[in-house]
Amino acid sequence: MANDKPARRPRAETPKGFRDYFGTEVTERKAMLDAIAGVYHRYGFDPLETSAVETVEALGKYLPDVDRPNDGVFAWQDEDADWLALRYDLTAPLARVAAQYRNDLPSPYRRYAMGPVWRNEKPGPGRFRQFYQCDADTVGSASVAADAEICAMLADALEVVGIPRGDYVVKVNNRKVLNGVMEVAGVLDPADPDKFAHERGIVLRAIDKIDRLGPEGVRALLGEGRKDESGDFTKGAGLPADKAEVVLALVRARAADNEGTILKLMELVYGSDIGQQGVAELQDIAELLSAQGYGPDRIVIDPGVVRGLGYYTGPVYEAELTFQITDEKGRPRNFGSVAGGGRYDGLVKRFTGQDVPATGVSIGVDRLLAALRAKGRLGGEAAGPVVVTVMDRDRMADYMAMVGELRAAGIRAEVYLGNPKNFGNQLKYADKRQSPIAIIQGGNEAAEGKVILKDLILGAKIAESATLEEWKDRPAQVLADRADLVAAVRKMLGQ
Amino acid sequence: MANDKPARRPRAETPKGFRDYFGTEVTERKAMLDAIAGVYHRYGFDPLETSAVETVEALGKYLPDVDRPNDGVFAWQDEDADWLALRYDLTAPLARVAAQYRNDLPSPYRRYAMGPVWRNEKPGPGRFRQFYQCDADTVGSASVAADAEICAMLADALEVVGIPRGDYVVKVNNRKVLNGVMEVAGVLDPADPDKFAHERGIVLRAIDKIDRLGPEGVRALLGEGRKDESGDFTKGAGLPADKAEVVLALVRARAADNEGTILKLMELVYGSDIGQQGVAELQDIAELLSAQGYGPDRIVIDPGVVRGLGYYTGPVYEAELTFQITDEKGRPRNFGSVAGGGRYDGLVKRFTGQDVPATGVSIGVDRLLAALRAKGRLGGEAAGPVVVTVMDRDRMADYMAMVGELRAAGIRAEVYLGNPKNFGNQLKYADKRQSPIAIIQGGNEAAEGKVILKDLILGAKIAESATLEEWKDRPAQVLADRADLVAAVRKMLGQ
Repeated sequence: MANDKPARRPRAETPKGFRDYFGTEVTERKAMLDAIAGVYHRYGFDPLETSAVETVEALGKYLPDVDRPNDGVFAWQDEDADWLALRYDLTAPLARVAAQYRNDLPSPYRRYAMGPVWRNEKPGPGRFRQFYQCDADTVGSASVAADAEICAMLADALEVVGIPRGDYVVKVNNRKVLNGVMEVAGVLDPADPDKFAHERGIVLRAIDKIDRLGPEGVRALLGEGRKDESGDFTKGAGLPADKAEVVLALVRARAADNEGTILKLMELVYGSDIGQQGVAELQDIAELLSAQGYGPDRIVIDPGVVRGLGYYTGPVYEAELTFQITDEKGRPRNFGSVAGGGRYDGLVKRFTGQDVPATGVSIGVDRLLAALRAKGRLGGEAAGPVVVTVMDRDRMADYMAMVGELRAAGIRAEVYLGNPKNFGNQLKYADKRQSPIAIIQGGNEAAEGKVILKDLILGAKIAESATLEEWKDRPAQVLADRADLVAAVRKMLGQ
Repeated sequence: MANDKPARRPRAETPKGFRDYFGTEVTERKAMLDAIAGVYHRYGFDPLETSAVETVEALGKYLPDVDRPNDGVFAWQDEDADWLALRYDLTAPLARVAAQYRNDLPSPYRRYAMGPVWRNEKPGPGRFRQFYQCDADTVGSASVAADAEICAMLADALEVVGIPRGDYVVKVNNRKVLNGVMEVAGVLDPADPDKFAHERGIVLRAIDKIDRLGPEGVRALLGEGRKDESGDFTKGAGLPADKAEVVLALVRARAADNEGTILKLMELVYGSDIGQQGVAELQDIAELLSAQGYGPDRIVIDPGVVRGLGYYTGPVYEAELTFQITDEKGRPRNFGSVAGGGRYDGLVKRFTGQDVPATGVSIGVDRLLAALRAKGRLGGEAAGPVVVTVMDRDRMADYMAMVGELRAAGIRAEVYLGNPKNFGNQLKYADKRQSPIAIIQGGNEAAEGKVILKDLILGAKIAESATLEEWKDRPAQVLADRADLVAAVRKMLGQ
């Protein structure tokens, strides 16, 4: 044993940007995902679990806000020189699956998927390189009824996990409306769809920044460009002032009701076929949802929604939580977006060359969990186990028989497995485990066929209130017959 | 649209050795893991979810059956030149966590973990490079009561997922017994534990191959070496013949009962302190389990168990399913091992330099699922959704209102979202979805406030039996009031 000292010990650290999840962090997320899966199931969606690893070629380069190719992905070359990578979302693997199994899957194919995704990005506070997504998509339906369905399902999912109606809104827009306005603004030529693609990217990113930059900042980005606080200059889309105003009018086109919004949009896209088609689709979606009772208190048309991803082709939607939280600087602000999605009719075509319309949503699991915690819906302590203490090391078999009986009765229970010499350590352990009851049996109790039950919850309360008066008719410790162990524990647990 | 043809389309393929899981493959695994988690929870184990990515340094090189370092792991260098890798099991991350959070975790720390692990190995039939493990470990307890507890919990877990008593056995052995025999055989020197490490590795691997090679093959590997069918020569441990017989006697030392086995083992390790300590530990484990009612029909001492991993230091155990299946060549054979584990007192010490005893088990999730399928416990079709067909594209809002009502009543339901032109395709879709009921409402029905319910399960039965006689009092199609949709569907579903 003397010569096994290594030159340097490995560091016990998670890699930068990764983290561990303990106890209730795991069970609360699981409970939330189970509840969402129940909604997805009821809507007819089937689960799909793809592997974490994909070929780089199959994944494609569809990360939002990443300018350089292959950025943002954890990738490596395998022994056959193929490039493999960890999936960065659940949509790219779905597109691959839809193409690979296109002859076997039902069409339309409704699927949901839940699991971690990985981004090779600079980690920051609350920003991790592995995080959960929870997606639902319909592949093979060109009907906006598919988009409307996903919006309704998203609203249902938020409610089922504990976001009450009124605390969220699902906002719907349509890329075709955005394109229609861009056609009117002169940066989209229907005869040559690739032309001005760069400018359109700038316009979309500018619109998306309205909350942060305000109208002046967006106006600058739509025009010549903008210098930020650090002095860096971002080149703009180069729109003339009157065209920039059309785009800005779009962002602010949300009216008191959906009908009013639709009317404004029709005006703004006048002269653009694609724009008119987009407005008609929004109208259809609003009607379909209204027929199911999803009014604008839950799902509303909002022309300010863009969504970052470049591959959207039609309706886009996002769920925003509208209640206020206090940010890290102590200022109140809306909680903000927890889910988003839209129609992407080109992703499967990458593989097959054939048009396969698709639409879907991704819920940001950690954001939604944070929201539930902010609302006080989560964060309860897990029920700790009954702890059977070890008074006499030689009678471990007796103590294990006790936990065996308790477990068989469905009661969470443990025997203390550390060094039993110091009894205080055993009670400290029980405390750390949030244990409701410690069970004690020394030699005397064993000889008499008895067992002591110590009520740790009551004990803690007594310690807090510093007076025994109010607890006097409820003893913190009882002596029970060993044969009645399970019944006595149940009684103390209030079961 | 003419010029978006790419030079080459990406292949829609999973990377070699990876696969996708659909529908019931996902839900059945989840149900199994949920049931196991329930057992782990009742035993006082808390969930832990570490990230898929670890530093190569933290993971260490503890893959079984891998001779070259860094083999078997998917690894890459990040932008800071640190080597990162996908975890290859759930034990190495636990050791890292136990070291990293050693001041915050309860001690002993009972934790369970479930999730995928990755091995960069040659894929083969049924052998994938990503697969699930389901582990439970106790860190910080030197007591063999911790090992006994895990064995009992493993038996409970197998029963709760549907392996009946009698169809499995948890076999327990002890590396100290193996070491004792190796000391007797002259390949372990207690004064210099590192000496003969290479020979001991050969001995352990030889014992582990007893089922495949038989006593003759093992005898050859214990001695000079063995030439296999391909002509390749494997160098042996170099034991003299009489010492090799001691090792072989160990493998066959299992007697009619645990007491008999213990007696034989005491004889075999006579003269070795470590060996005697190991036998005493096995005796303790047998007694602890017996006190809880776990007899040798469920958990038995079996000196033939080795377990492949090099880091085990004490008790080792594995769960074997004893029922017969037919292998790919049509021959009956035992299903074999589905879980294994043991005590590893050195893994946390790698990080901290301090002794931290630990023991734990890993369930091979896919093997156990395969066993449940072989036993006919799984493989049921998922309940398909009620499918509302689309007779009139303009009345999509009506159809969506129908599914909305059904879903609100807790009934899984879908509206057909493909191209509704061909009604036959809609019924084919319902069939593929295992739908129990298709709902049809054309213009006439709508005008009359009616809806048609088509019993697809009954319809399929009628088609099979080719006679309507037996079904005549149960119509395959009913006309119901639109207002009574939910009640009519419930009735047809037999709810």
